[in-house]
Amino acid sequence: MKDSQWISSPTQNSRWVAMEIEECISRRRDTRHFLSDEVPERVLNQAFAAAHHAPSVGLSEPWRFVVVQDQKVKQKLFDNFNAIHRNATLELTDEKRKQIFLSLKLEAILEAPLGVAVFCEHPATENLTIGIQGTTDAFEWSCACAIQNFWLSLTAQGYSAGWVSILDMNLFKSELKVPETWIPMGYLCVGKPATNYEGIPMLELKKWGKRSSKPVIFYL
Amino acid sequence: MKDSQWISSPTQNSRWVAMEIEECISRRRDTRHFLSDEVPERVLNQAFAAAHHAPSVGLSEPWRFVVVQDQKVKQKLFDNFNAIHRNATLELTDEKRKQIFLSLKLEAILEAPLGVAVFCEHPATENLTIGIQGTTDAFEWSCACAIQNFWLSLTAQGYSAGWVSILDMNLFKSELKVPETWIPMGYLCVGKPATNYEGIPMLELKKWGKRSSKPVIFYL
Repeated sequence: MKDSQWISSPTQNSRWVAMEIEECISRRRDTRHFLSDEVPERVLNQAFAAAHHAPSVGLSEPWRFVVVQDQKVKQKLFDNFNAIHRNATLELTDEKRKQIFLSLKLEAILEAPLGVAVFCEHPATENLTIGIQGTTDAFEWSCACAIQNFWLSLTAQGYSAGWVSILDMNLFKSELKVPETWIPMGYLCVGKPATNYEGIPMLELKKWGKRSSKPVIFYL
Repeated sequence: MKDSQWISSPTQNSRWVAMEIEECISRRRDTRHFLSDEVPERVLNQAFAAAHHAPSVGLSEPWRFVVVQDQKVKQKLFDNFNAIHRNATLELTDEKRKQIFLSLKLEAILEAPLGVAVFCEHPATENLTIGIQGTTDAFEWSCACAIQNFWLSLTAQGYSAGWVSILDMNLFKSELKVPETWIPMGYLCVGKPATNYEGIPMLELKKWGKRSSKPVIFYL
């Protein structure tokens, strides 16, 4: 792949997919149920190109990705999830809530054709970055924007992701052998969705919670 | 406005705007130069609807918005920015870098027709939220995804935003009189862009930095 593809204009690149932005934003789902179809390299690369177009504080581009296809690595991550999930179950004292919780599928680590672990790396001279004077958390927020772009691109291409964050994050880092300084942001299971959950979040469909009709906004 | 608008399907809502997702992602710019045109209420509401469609950890919807139109409040925020900006200038010992830094316009607080301050509110029983077992920072990451959706929607509608984070965040909170528990994520200047910066980030155009051609990706 030529480097120039990554920052080329979409009009110069026939591989960009047409889906209206608002429709795509609305259709994006946190997916836990995937078909076994492989994710073509062009789909993944296009999603990474979208991620790389995210706003980054002071042009820091702090996002780091690890694509996981090795089944042994996936198994370690799945074990990691299970241990933390078990602890989360113990926190729930309300029996009815616990039953709903146990009925929820909250990952697809083993069966999704691939996973993308996301990390944030602060620059060595972070104090010289424009825009982190308020908080250096802005680096992680840039990465979250990159994840959202990645997810929207997958959605537009007929694929999806599910963001798994029920993990021991230190173990997660060591399992993926990434540098000590990288900040873990979770694991995206990626593939072709087996369902769109009737067009609403799976947690809402399963009656765990309900979206509010509109956001909280004040006016000054 | 009817509540149902906020979570209705885009196909039921003629106000959704058609711009291809990948084009929109690529065209979004961190805007510091605005025309004086007002931002119509329907444009702003549509952008908030997009924000409210962001993924939120455990369906927490932790984003909180404060729309600022009051010129006196804007002046306070501008003074806040200026004090922190001055401190940031002092950090720069390289004279050439300092000259570039001083030539950069890094906010548009006074002249943008409106601003949107963004905050994150953790739920009172955050330990019961699905997905924060790895880190409760996931609440802020949800808000960052909401900001990205908001920005993309504005871009698709011919408007834009500029994310200002060179702020004393505690002062920012008190200036906007928000609850003590809200976590400040910065201030978005919103309006119709006066320029697209030749289609590249303004920091790149002004030779402060350069985007890399592609993201850092490892494969396992």
